[in-house]
Amino acid sequence: MSAQASGVRALLFDVFGTVVDWRGSLIAELSAWAASRGLGGDWTGLVDAWRGAYVPSMDEVRRHPERGYRNLDALHRASLERLLPEFGIGSLSEADLDHVTRGWHRLEPWSDSVAGLTRLKTRFIISPLSNGNVALLTNMAKHAGLPWDLVLSAELFRHYKPDPETYLGAAALLGLAPNEVMLVAAHNADLKGARACGLATCFVPRPTEYGPLQNKDFGAEDDWTMVVRDLVDLADRFGC
Amino acid sequence: MSAQASGVRALLFDVFGTVVDWRGSLIAELSAWAASRGLGGDWTGLVDAWRGAYVPSMDEVRRHPERGYRNLDALHRASLERLLPEFGIGSLSEADLDHVTRGWHRLEPWSDSVAGLTRLKTRFIISPLSNGNVALLTNMAKHAGLPWDLVLSAELFRHYKPDPETYLGAAALLGLAPNEVMLVAAHNADLKGARACGLATCFVPRPTEYGPLQNKDFGAEDDWTMVVRDLVDLADRFGC
Repeated sequence: MSAQASGVRALLFDVFGTVVDWRGSLIAELSAWAASRGLGGDWTGLVDAWRGAYVPSMDEVRRHPERGYRNLDALHRASLERLLPEFGIGSLSEADLDHVTRGWHRLEPWSDSVAGLTRLKTRFIISPLSNGNVALLTNMAKHAGLPWDLVLSAELFRHYKPDPETYLGAAALLGLAPNEVMLVAAHNADLKGARACGLATCFVPRPTEYGPLQNKDFGAEDDWTMVVRDLVDLADRFGC
Repeated sequence: MSAQASGVRALLFDVFGTVVDWRGSLIAELSAWAASRGLGGDWTGLVDAWRGAYVPSMDEVRRHPERGYRNLDALHRASLERLLPEFGIGSLSEADLDHVTRGWHRLEPWSDSVAGLTRLKTRFIISPLSNGNVALLTNMAKHAGLPWDLVLSAELFRHYKPDPETYLGAAALLGLAPNEVMLVAAHNADLKGARACGLATCFVPRPTEYGPLQNKDFGAEDDWTMVVRDLVDLADRFGC
């Protein structure tokens, strides 16, 4: 245990990919839903393209602050409507579009997530720090049984990660110095943003996050404060 | 169960007085702490005067937006420093002042609060909606075992209750219409603010909140959506 790790009071978790399996969850749930309604189309392709639109859509918000902040539900909805025809999915009703968009509120955790978080919560403040909006993260926690102490979201800071406002804003709301807060993430770029703001960092590999399309984040790419196998291993390391 | 109550998806709770016994907790804890350090002074008088400074200090923030928002920890600290000499309490160190101010993070729940909230959480999103800042509410929840799904605070909206930005901001972050959200409070004025924004309302009496100084809020003063005996009764009414 490094000195920096032993001074940590709060653990912030990236969520999509780190705590929940967005790809596996969405492909399974939406394919079953589509089949039950007799809808055709390439839902696996849609899910991958939808996630592909994620970073560009946040970049658009970042580049055009004059247009105002748009939360992730709004970005997901706009990219979904644009992508559906490309994947042979016929016209959906307003209620259907809402249901599909809210698939991101119903993601399933990785098998170690709930057990690890439950143990970590006994010693630390635990919270998401996600680009997902507050409602998305709250509904997901109810669905997946994620035992957060509170819900911190990019939406509260009107900036998406890795903008420094998110990491520093989270520490400030918790009344903690940045080095008393650790970001836990499966993405080296997110950890890089957190470290630049003075946070402690923990990498957890999720090498199947993107399925056959995974092309990065197979391992730690810097000397992060900690590198663990999964969230149960993180609880073990902290003796929780 | 009224139609309005049956449409509720999230329960927001006033905290000071409604969920926790701020007066009893602070008098007991700070008196014991002062005795253990050989500090004299009228700690009961201090606690009552400290709470007396609460509304005026928030009004000051409301009247002077140009000075910027100050969170409740900052207001508590400023009023504490001003009041200490009046109550015969000698000069405290910086660490002591911080410890006493953070007494508001260590309040004890009313005897029904944890049991009621735990049951209500099975059916509703449950969150504080308090003038306490995020760190205060988070630390209090860890201390008192309050099983919030998330922590909503005036600090997020940079407005204190009963400003409408707080009630409407909470509903918006939850992605809910105001009438899908219910405020539960022991204070008629807070419920009045919530109702004016379209929220459902629930009064719970806490007639010992102010001890011998209690002079209002002994009962419901309007036809609130619900009136319950305590939070266990609220869970009973909802069949949780």
